[in-house]
Amino acid sequence: MGATMKVLILSAGKRVKIIEYLRQAGVETIIAADCSELAPALYVADSFYIVPRSTTPEYAPAVRDICKRESVDLCIPTLDLDLDPLAEYREEFASFGTTLMISPAPSIDLAADKWKMYEFCLAHNIPTPRTWIDRDVLDRDLASGEARFPLFSKPVRSAGSVDIGIARDSRDLDNIFASSQRMLVQEFMDGEPFDVDVYLDLHSGLVRGINPKLKLRMREGTTDKALIFDDPELTNFIEDLFSKAAFRGVVDVDLYATPTGYSLLEINPRFSWSYAHSHECGANFIEALLADVSGKRLDRVATARPKWHALAYDSVILNRNRN
Amino acid sequence: MGATMKVLILSAGKRVKIIEYLRQAGVETIIAADCSELAPALYVADSFYIVPRSTTPEYAPAVRDICKRESVDLCIPTLDLDLDPLAEYREEFASFGTTLMISPAPSIDLAADKWKMYEFCLAHNIPTPRTWIDRDVLDRDLASGEARFPLFSKPVRSAGSVDIGIARDSRDLDNIFASSQRMLVQEFMDGEPFDVDVYLDLHSGLVRGINPKLKLRMREGTTDKALIFDDPELTNFIEDLFSKAAFRGVVDVDLYATPTGYSLLEINPRFSWSYAHSHECGANFIEALLADVSGKRLDRVATARPKWHALAYDSVILNRNRN
Repeated sequence: MGATMKVLILSAGKRVKIIEYLRQAGVETIIAADCSELAPALYVADSFYIVPRSTTPEYAPAVRDICKRESVDLCIPTLDLDLDPLAEYREEFASFGTTLMISPAPSIDLAADKWKMYEFCLAHNIPTPRTWIDRDVLDRDLASGEARFPLFSKPVRSAGSVDIGIARDSRDLDNIFASSQRMLVQEFMDGEPFDVDVYLDLHSGLVRGINPKLKLRMREGTTDKALIFDDPELTNFIEDLFSKAAFRGVVDVDLYATPTGYSLLEINPRFSWSYAHSHECGANFIEALLADVSGKRLDRVATARPKWHALAYDSVILNRNRN
Repeated sequence: MGATMKVLILSAGKRVKIIEYLRQAGVETIIAADCSELAPALYVADSFYIVPRSTTPEYAPAVRDICKRESVDLCIPTLDLDLDPLAEYREEFASFGTTLMISPAPSIDLAADKWKMYEFCLAHNIPTPRTWIDRDVLDRDLASGEARFPLFSKPVRSAGSVDIGIARDSRDLDNIFASSQRMLVQEFMDGEPFDVDVYLDLHSGLVRGINPKLKLRMREGTTDKALIFDDPELTNFIEDLFSKAAFRGVVDVDLYATPTGYSLLEINPRFSWSYAHSHECGANFIEALLADVSGKRLDRVATARPKWHALAYDSVILNRNRN
């Protein structure tokens, strides 16, 4: 698999395990790109590029130039901030032979906008936490008891847990809605947090693999300890979700298991930060991705072994100081 | 080295790399102990024990029983909380053939008590941040301008960064000194934070190896990115410190490089959380330790290569759920 393939991994950062898995899957050449020379994954790739930040207009053209110059077969964005600038480039990249592992542009926008996602869930009957963006509606629902404190506050568009807060009373809401960012508030979820790695066929968008993990402990926004978990109801939830939402490749779904069933928190249309937890227990989405890029017909990826714990620990890479 | 040796590692937790290094150094049998089955290092050892928490009176006897039953050659406590309960056991462990890698009991107490350490530094002319434990003295020094806000507040005895706060005014001080714990406050350090791995001869306490790291980024109290750094002045500082303070084995020193020189923050008399950063660039204190336990004469451990970055990333271990 992937024996003559050249892969570019973007915002390589700490994605060391993904590079190791690509190599194990037989990828011949792995190129890493990051905006910082202190990204450890740069030093396990065959070569690397320092590129502009993905928030700058220079980012997408720089990535395109690398893909063209290096004849990259597969380009993998790994950061939420990579997705928006690259979303429009899928066809152009394809025209010179590079498969960009990215979902359709409207889906990238949907996943990045929590209010659009909420409306999408309502329209498609997908359980999700009750959400308010309009203060008047919220005040009315607070008065009637349909909404109640505490509430989560989040920017409508934000990656990760940046600027997430808690509103305990009306004064907190005043501050939240006075923010320079568009904000929304969400009901508190009574349940257990899950993270699900999903592989979606690059061509059809069909679900080819699902690996759910119950998050037991977090560390700076990434999963530190998890329990691999198999539940047919959760599989059905994921299948239903992606029959309605058009995503592609490896994606990450955050949800809660509540007393009344699963509830969708968000879709991150890129590798989860704990993809290694799934991969190590057999959910090899890297091989599925490489097969998909090579035009092989995809079977269902083997499901993970249930009831294993995934336990993170620190490893380290040394570079020479290049200054 | 260590070919017929049996090593027990306590509070194994995430100390996966230390176990890997012990194995690379030729240790025949590695046993891990932890109070939690979710400690990843348990699953890379040859066998493991679940033991009581080190804060309970059952801890030290449980460790002693394992060492005796398993004929352990070397027992390595790795957590601050391991040290106090084991400090009195060094001779007893030695009597049945187990070397306990631990500093003398008075030094363990010194390192655990920030006020004693401050007085020790004053008495031995070791630069350290100015510290106050008496509110009256502090108020007098604030009035005269010898002390000024903001100040760090810390429990006199605490491990890691637990309950560390900032005092910005007198009211903050009222709250701090009203705490049920004994508290002290420290001046803010104007400088760069360093972490130094040191190997001290188990018998003589002489410094055998020094590996300084400039901390560039922290993550939940551990070093995420560091610059390996060589400076003769820092070497002299460490040599001077341990000619005055009697420690043994692998220890970790936190200090600041200030405009007027190095300033000692604390001594952690156990492996640092970023020991792997030193080991990977050549400061192999594991081999020094095993040679020391085997009674070999120790030479100076090779110094680290300067100007490399140490860059942490997450790796993961799976266990079977044992419930």
